[in-house]
Amino acid sequence: MNFKTVVMIQSDFFQIEQETPWQDAGPGVQRQVYGYGEALMLVKAKFEKGAEGTPHQHPHLQATYVASGAFEVTIGGQKNVVVAGDGFYVPADVLHGCTCLEAGVLIDAFSPCREDFL
Amino acid sequence: MNFKTVVMIQSDFFQIEQETPWQDAGPGVQRQVYGYGEALMLVKAKFEKGAEGTPHQHPHLQATYVASGAFEVTIGGQKNVVVAGDGFYVPADVLHGCTCLEAGVLIDAFSPCREDFL
Repeated sequence: MNFKTVVMIQSDFFQIEQETPWQDAGPGVQRQVYGYGEALMLVKAKFEKGAEGTPHQHPHLQATYVASGAFEVTIGGQKNVVVAGDGFYVPADVLHGCTCLEAGVLIDAFSPCREDFL
Repeated sequence: MNFKTVVMIQSDFFQIEQETPWQDAGPGVQRQVYGYGEALMLVKAKFEKGAEGTPHQHPHLQATYVASGAFEVTIGGQKNVVVAGDGFYVPADVLHGCTCLEAGVLIDAFSPCREDFL
């Protein structure tokens, strides 16, 4: 008889802000992990003014909502300033980065799950 | 010789709030579609006080961030009140719904893409 352990990647149904731990995500950047399953993860990233999301790429699709602040964002060589209420999309493996112009918060959705954040 | 049309499901890199159309999403609810690719879609849903997300289910995973307002949310029979800064997660095919207690905005991430919103 064979036994196999199946680990299910899935968050709780509810995430309460004050109970959700912060992770260091580089100088001037902190993140909280919100809901996730195998194919999806939602993350809040809080930036101090001047903090950078240094250019990077990953196989995960990323769709982001700017909850507050202002950011200069570069995606695949296209640069734009986005402010609270705007958003952006990063296809798989496309180089992207940002500079925080006014302190603020990004809500990042990824597919599949960013297991490196767990 | 065969020709095949391949339609790529992908948003622009940038979504500017004022340029993004609103869709009617039921009484007291409107939505804007933000970034998306085949496996991911980000959506903003704006609720008037008292508006309902009537109980429904879909095969898409859903992770939501409460950008503003207050909502009573029920997921698979678990009920909780979430306010600005909180979040929730809905696994595939799990019945969920909400009632808006204070006017507000939800940022919904789905995997795969909600092609029915395009």
